This record gives sequence, structure tokens and C-alpha cells, in this order.
Amino acid sequence: MTNLPGIVITGASGRMGQMLIKTVQASDKARLVGVVDRPGHDWIGHDVGECMGGAALGVAVSDDPLEVFAHAQAVIDFTSPAATVEFAGLAAQARAVHVIGTTGMSEDDLKKIAAAARHATVIRAGNMSLGVNLLVQLTKKVAAALDEDFDIEVIEAHHNKKVDAPSGTALMLGEAAAEGRGVVLDNVSDRGRDGITGAREKGHIGFSAIRGGDIVGEHDVLFAAVGERVVLRHVATDRAIFARGALKAALWGQGKGPGEYDMVDVLGL
Amino acid sequence: MTNLPGIVITGASGRMGQMLIKTVQASDKARLVGVVDRPGHDWIGHDVGECMGGAALGVAVSDDPLEVFAHAQAVIDFTSPAATVEFAGLAAQARAVHVIGTTGMSEDDLKKIAAAARHATVIRAGNMSLGVNLLVQLTKKVAAALDEDFDIEVIEAHHNKKVDAPSGTALMLGEAAAEGRGVVLDNVSDRGRDGITGAREKGHIGFSAIRGGDIVGEHDVLFAAVGERVVLRHVATDRAIFARGALKAALWGQGKGPGEYDMVDVLGL
Amino acid sequence: MTNLPGIVITGASGRMGQMLIKTVQASDKARLVGVVDRPGHDWIGHDVGECMGGAALGVAVSDDPLEVFAHAQAVIDFTSPAATVEFAGLAAQARAVHVIGTTGMSEDDLKKIAAAARHATVIRAGNMSLGVNLLVQLTKKVAAALDEDFDIEVIEAHHNKKVDAPSGTALMLGEAAAEGRGVVLDNVSDRGRDGITGAREKGHIGFSAIRGGDIVGEHDVLFAAVGERVVLRHVATDRAIFARGALKAALWGQGKGPGEYDMVDVLGL
Amino acid sequence: MTNLPGIVITGASGRMGQMLIKTVQASDKARLVGVVDRPGHDWIGHDVGECMGGAALGVAVSDDPLEVFAHAQAVIDFTSPAATVEFAGLAAQARAVHVIGTTGMSEDDLKKIAAAARHATVIRAGNMSLGVNLLVQLTKKVAAALDEDFDIEVIEAHHNKKVDAPSGTALMLGEAAAEGRGVVLDNVSDRGRDGITGAREKGHIGFSAIRGGDIVGEHDVLFAAVGERVVLRHVATDRAIFARGALKAALWGQGKGPGEYDMVDVLGL
Repeated sequence: MTNLPGIVITGASGRMGQMLIKTVQASDKARLVGVVDRPGHDWIGHDVGECMGGAALGVAVSDDPLEVFAHAQAVIDFTSPAATVEFAGLAAQARAVHVIGTTGMSEDDLKKIAAAARHATVIRAGNMSLGVNLLVQLTKKVAAALDEDFDIEVIEAHHNKKVDAPSGTALMLGEAAAEGRGVVLDNVSDRGRDGITGAREKGHIGFSAIRGGDIVGEHDVLFAAVGERVVLRHVATDRAIFARGALKAALWGQGKGPGEYDMVDVLGL
Repeated sequence: MTNLPGIVITGASGRMGQMLIKTVQASDKARLVGVVDRPGHDWIGHDVGECMGGAALGVAVSDDPLEVFAHAQAVIDFTSPAATVEFAGLAAQARAVHVIGTTGMSEDDLKKIAAAARHATVIRAGNMSLGVNLLVQLTKKVAAALDEDFDIEVIEAHHNKKVDAPSGTALMLGEAAAEGRGVVLDNVSDRGRDGITGAREKGHIGFSAIRGGDIVGEHDVLFAAVGERVVLRHVATDRAIFARGALKAALWGQGKGPGEYDMVDVLGL
Repeated sequence: MTNLPGIVITGASGRMGQMLIKTVQASDKARLVGVVDRPGHDWIGHDVGECMGGAALGVAVSDDPLEVFAHAQAVIDFTSPAATVEFAGLAAQARAVHVIGTTGMSEDDLKKIAAAARHATVIRAGNMSLGVNLLVQLTKKVAAALDEDFDIEVIEAHHNKKVDAPSGTALMLGEAAAEGRGVVLDNVSDRGRDGITGAREKGHIGFSAIRGGDIVGEHDVLFAAVGERVVLRHVATDRAIFARGALKAALWGQGKGPGEYDMVDVLGL
Repeated sequence: MTNLPGIVITGASGRMGQMLIKTVQASDKARLVGVVDRPGHDWIGHDVGECMGGAALGVAVSDDPLEVFAHAQAVIDFTSPAATVEFAGLAAQARAVHVIGTTGMSEDDLKKIAAAARHATVIRAGNMSLGVNLLVQLTKKVAAALDEDFDIEVIEAHHNKKVDAPSGTALMLGEAAAEGRGVVLDNVSDRGRDGITGAREKGHIGFSAIRGGDIVGEHDVLFAAVGERVVLRHVATDRAIFARGALKAALWGQGKGPGEYDMVDVLGL
């Protein structure tokens, strides 16, 4: 068991952090060797299992990422852009694979991640689920196969706490559709349709955002022509799929050379 | 057969006009006694069956509505607000039931229709289908039964020629939901969701408009809470349902006293 | 806090039992006063919180239901028909409200429950969710409002462990539709459609059962006519809704007279 | 215009025959040169446009296929297996492309078609729509990409006149899924699920058939795992898509060498 890859989870106290901790604990292919949260957090110095309201796990929450990363083969990180940029440098120093699920990064942040990836193995994706990454691939292929007689619409539904629209995954799907058609998404994007819009423009890609309850995440890519429609749909019902995807990436990255990878690489799609 | 109620169709050359003509022709409960189009239109003076590319029907297209209405028991009218206001006066004079499917009328137009309805039988609805009118009733009941833990969203899909969003029927459904909750739709309406919207506000009613292909009309009313959802859905696949609803209204109106009725009256929901 | 109604959970070690325990613990309107499992089970005598892998709750698992029921205001019971029949007698003796979510009971079992309900408050439902019980009501109304031109189909989807088809809830919905139409479900039921079936018979009610993954439970009631469709849908994404419904029933039952109630009573639909 | 490929439609008086006639008439890439129906049919000898209730088309309905095929570049044929086998021989003699949409053919029928295709261009498909053929391709790919943790279900909905279940297209999709997984459909097929079925077997492919109203044809391929699902959906709303696909095949076949082709060839998927 001590030969299993050792994993560190950052942002331990957050909803995604706790999900990641449980996923690593439940796996027989990896072991939890450290968890990190920000200096000053209540949990620092305490056993993370107990902090989460369960049995002790024998792993204390640390506020010193470099010290913790040094004992790890991989760091799984769903935090904020600023923290992730810092962790990228520290993970590279520690020669640990850095799996990044953080979203909302700026161009500048991405350059820093790319710089770290020159000497380290980085796996980064806006959505870690197998199904969504497959859907992105299919969307690109179908958009290329069907001509502009098929109007493309991306429809997504999420919980009522979500603050942005459309979702990052919806935009990934829109990008894939645009790429399949050889156009630039920004030039053909129909967002926030409301009022007297006029007829739909041929070649445009529409977006709709539904918000309600605790919907984890649902995405439809609709291709609608005269007399027929094709729909590619993904439904996520449990955030654990993102945690399992991240752990899969961490294991896949063991022994890989430096570089920036994504889930399409991991999943071999 | 000559005892069957005689029906006049206005806007004969339009897509809905032709659908109405076919529906009356196919019915064994009514007979087509006249069709009207605007002065100067190509079809004026010609047999309407032949104009539509089929066999002669023995009814010539007229540009004189008063003369034609005089021989009718009912006028079915899916035209424009200005034409409909004029037809309302003429149908009242002719003592014919006036079935109105025209949308987009102003407050002022509606006052004129109401004035005509003091001496005439007027049946007016934004959507003539049985299913949609049922859905409006259900939406009101469900919105009253479920509390604000259930977020309400109205999602509609229509063909790519539609120029406005959300659809008139989506707004009818939103009004019904608001009424069920005892709130004013304008105060709680979330339309055109896009960008950094912040978390969804409790009690709000969201709208999404999907456009593509030749979708006749699909409406979902979603009630989403933590752990469960209820959806009320209507799918229209053939515009003929609106024509059949209008004819049903014209027959129902025979012998009714003056007043302004809607499809809930006709359908006895 | 000690004035809050005391709740006992039976079948403590099962998936639904554990969900119920967590739901009562999380509530500020009730307190957990006992949990029961069958004699010989590993958990007997141990703190139930620790058995479930978490912190101690101060409640030991008992194999003596009568002793435990004596301290309770309500017993929530999702076990097996044989156990439930026994618990019904014991709960009546203890003057505790008996909330029954157990399914698959025979006519004979139901008679015994009815006998217990002559002197005790029993609340029994095949599905404890607010949304499903609302859907049952709507289905009955819509089936009554729409004539046989609308074909009725009940479609359900559940996880791949489910051993029976159609689901009990699908059958409840079918019964409601048959009742709305004034027919007997057994006479019009189309189940397991496969092979050369011939055209669909007018007035029949069809059932389809989809199985896959960990789908908690989804039910559609489709009313399909020429040119239009109405769909009533319920989606459950978290079993906790059944536990919350059962707790709501337990609290509603406090102070109610003897009798057998269902969730329509509890929810005031 | 007389240089456009000349098309013959068989089974002229049937619903699909009439749809094909209208589609060829409406096209500017082909011309209607003949229509065939069985000897003794009312329409024989009359102008087919008038028989269909419209204007004359200058083409009389014939009961002599060989004579009519001799003037054609392609024959489009949605009739019965027996008629199609006969037409295959006559089309080969006439050196006309034979487009076959007939379903329900036996092994023996298929051998006869294959024999004709040694000297003639035959294009045969169970479903002529672009979208369905694309869906078949996607289903195969997705089934290959996702492992058995994803349960596969094929769900289809059709009008209430349909006499068989599951639909031919659903079976095509099931075959594609089985092929993607490297298994034989007959060994893993779950049809007509009803009663005490036991838990779903891993690796099986389930089928559900929904029947109601005038639904043209809807197909879902569901891949359901723990926590997520992928759905590939096709919705046909107008039978004209099958007619347009058949005409597209007839035009594509001009100048192609002898052989038996399908829509994947025609569509270049």
C-alpha cells in the first residue's frame, strides 16, 4: 500500500476539496499523503477526517504546501487562479504531477502555468468528467459533418447558486462546435436572447442557461434542421465524477514527461 | 350540409390562412363560405383551392370582408392587429362569431376588441391548442401548490424564423406561474440570462428561448428544488392543432351571448 | 430541544435507514431517540453514528423494537413487509405514529396494517416525495380532461440494481391515469411491448422501464395526440427527498386521530 | 431541365410514395419521369398529380414497371419485400440506380438484392435520414470509447399505428452499440422488460418502445454510469427527410459503378 502514488489535496475545506479527499480515501490505487488549506483556517493542524465530521484519517491539515508537496507524487487542485499559479511552481519544484481543475484563469495565469509545464507534468481541464470530454469531441465531429442547415444551440442547466452564464462547459462545447465549422465562436455567438431579436442568423451558435434547485450540471448540444434534430447530451448527477476524473488524471500522469496535458489525453479519446 | 355553420377565413394566402382553409374543408361540422385577403393581392377573384395549388373549392378570394362576413356564422382571423381591429367591427355588424388568433396587439387594440365584444361573440387566445391551454391551468395550480423552494423556469423552443423571445405562450405560462404564487411577473422575471448574473434570486421566474430548424413550438415549465424536479411540458408538432382549436372555438361560439371568451371557456378546462 | 418529537428509525443499517438517520439528525424539528436493526446484526449495541463511519450520536442500535418505540412519538419504517406488519402492532401499542415507506406488501399485509390503524395513526405511501405525489394528482386530472385521442404512456428510468419493472411509482401513475379515465388499469395496461405487437389500442396505457447507472428515479407521463403532446415529469436526484418526506409525515401525524393516511393528506394537495 | 436525372417512384399511392413524388417535383436537381402502382389500382392510367388531389403533373400512373424504368436514371422504392425484389431485377435491366427504403426483408430477399447489385447500382438503407445515419456512427464510436460501467439503453417513440417494436432504427442503433463493444447484439439484448427482472446485467443493451399520437420517430441512445450519463438523440418531425435522403441517394448514385451501397456512403460520414 505504501507503494501507491501519494496524493495531496489543496483547498481541503471546500466542497470540492472534501469530495476529492473522500475519493482518494475510497480508492485502492492511491493514498492520501497530505491536505492543504490557507494559513489561518480553523482546520490547520487538525486531522482532516475529524474536521469533515467523520473518523480520523491520520492526515493533518497543513498551511505549508511546499513541505507537503515534497512527499507527494501528485497534487490535485481545484482552488482559485492565484493559488493555482503559486501551487504550479511548488509542484514543479517537488516533481509532483499537478492536476488543475481551477477555472476562471486569465491569459496571464495560463502563461505562468505553461511556464511551469516546461519542467513539470501538468494536467488541466475545465471539466474533468469522462462524459463531458467525450461530448466535446463528438460536438466537434458533428458540427463538421452537418452543414449550416443545422442550427446549433447549446443549452445548459445548473443549480441556483451558480453566478455565471453560460457555464464554462457550455462555452467549451460552443468552442468545439465553432472549431468543427471552421468559424470563430465570438463572431457567431447568440447569448441572452430576449425581446425582438429578429430571425435567427444562419451559422450562429445559441446559448441558453437554465438555473434551479441543486442541478449538478446538464448540457445539450442541439443541431436542428428542417424535419430533424440531433441532440448530444451530458447529465452529471454527482460531483464525485469530477473528483474521480481528477484522480484518474493524477494516476495517468505518473511517469509522463513534462508538458501540459488535458483530459482528452488522459481518457485516450 | 348547408345547415352546417358557414366559416370565413381571413388572411387566406398566409401560412396560417391556408392551414385554416384546409382544416375547415376537412371538417364535417362546418363549411367554408368565404375567404378574404387584402385588396390588390394576386389571389383576389380566383378560386382559393386553385390558388393553393390544388383542386377548385368553389370559393373565390374576396377583398370585401363585410360582404363576405354577411353570409357567415363565424370568422376565423389570424392576421395583424390593425386588420383584426377592423374585422372585429365588421364581424359584429354581420353578427358572426369572431375567433381571434392574432398576436402582438396593443392595449389600445384590446380596448377596441373589448368594445366590439359588448355586442358580439369574440373568442380570443394567444394559443388555440388544447394542450397549451391545459398546461397554463396546470402551471397555475402547481405554482400555488409548491413553495419558493421550487425555482420556476420556463423554457421554449421555436423555429429559426421566429423574431421575438420569449414566445407569447412562454409569457402566458410565466403569467400563470406568477398568478399561482400571488406575485407580479414583471417583478420576478429573469430574461436573457448572460454573463456574471450572481446567484439566482429566490422566487424569480426564468425564461430561456431556443431557436432552430422548423420546431413548431415546445414549452417546458420546470419546478426545481433540492433533490427533485417537476416538469410540465407541451410539444406542438403540427400547426394544424391551432387551426383545429380555432374551428372548435368557432363552433362552440354558435348561440353564445355577446362577450369576450378564451380557450379555457371553449375547452371547459 | 427535548420537547421535539422523538423519532425511531427501523432498518438502521440499510441505505434508506442511514439516509433517514442523517435526515432526522439534520432537522431542527425532531430528535433521534432510537434506531432498530434485526437481532444478530453487527451493529447491535454500538453507537449508530460510529457504525455509519462518523462521529458518535449517543444512540445505540437496538434489536428490541418495543422497548425503543415506547420512548418515541414516531417510527419511520422502510423495511420489509413482514417486519412492517410486526412494527405496526408494536407502534400501535406504544402510541407512536407509524410512517411506512415499505413497498411490495400483499393484500393480507395491508389488511393487518389497516387493523392496526383502527387504534393508531399510520401514514403509508409508495413514494414519499412531494413532487411524485403532486404528479399523481396531476395525472388523474389531465387524464380526465383529455379524451382518448390522447394516448397515455408512463415511462420510468431507474438504476441498474432495481429488480422489478415497471416501478411501483409508475404503477401508481398508471392507476391515477386509469382512474381519471374511469377505467380499470389491468384491462388497458400495455407492458413489455416487444415484437409484432400490432397497432396501439385506443384507450390503452403503456409502460416502459429504462435501467442504467445510478439513476435515482425519473417518471414521465406522456399524453400524445395528433399534432401535440403533454408530458408530466418528475425527476428525483437524491434519495434524501424520500427521507425528508417521511420525516414531514411523522411530524404532521403528531396529534392526528387514528386512521390510515397517505402523502396527499400530509402535503395537503 | 430535360438533362436532369429522371426519377421513377414506385408505390405511388402510398403515404411514402406521395411524399417521394412531391419531393422530386419540388427539386431542381431531378425530374419525375414515371410513377408505378400495382395492376388493378384505381390510379392506373390517371395523372398522378390529380390522383393526389392537386394540379396535373403530366405523368400517368403505370402498372408496367419495366416500361417505365426504361426511361429513368433512378427508381426510388419504398414498397414491400416481394415487390422490391422484383423491381431490383427490372432496374438492373434498365440500368437505373435502385434506391431501396423497403424494410422487413428476409435473408433470402437480401441475397436476391445482392445478386442484382453485381450488375447494378443499389443503395439500400433502413433509414434514409442524415441525422439517423450520423447517430448510428456516433453510437458505435461512443460504445467503443466507454466501457461497461456505462449501461446502454435504446429508447424509441413512434406513432400509434406502428405494428412492431422495437423499431428497425432502434435495432440498427443497438447493432452499432454492440459492434462498438465487440459483442453480438442477440447475446446481450434486453427487450420487453416487465415483472421481476432481477438487477440489470452488466454489458446488456436494453430497448424500450413508446407508442402514441402521430410521433414520426424519436430515438435515444443512453449511456448511463454512476454519476453521469451521455445521451445521443435523433428526432424526426417530418417524413419528408426520408424522401429527401432517398432523392439525395438517387442523385449520388449517378455514374457510380455496380455494387450495394448504404447511406453512410451517400452522406460521406
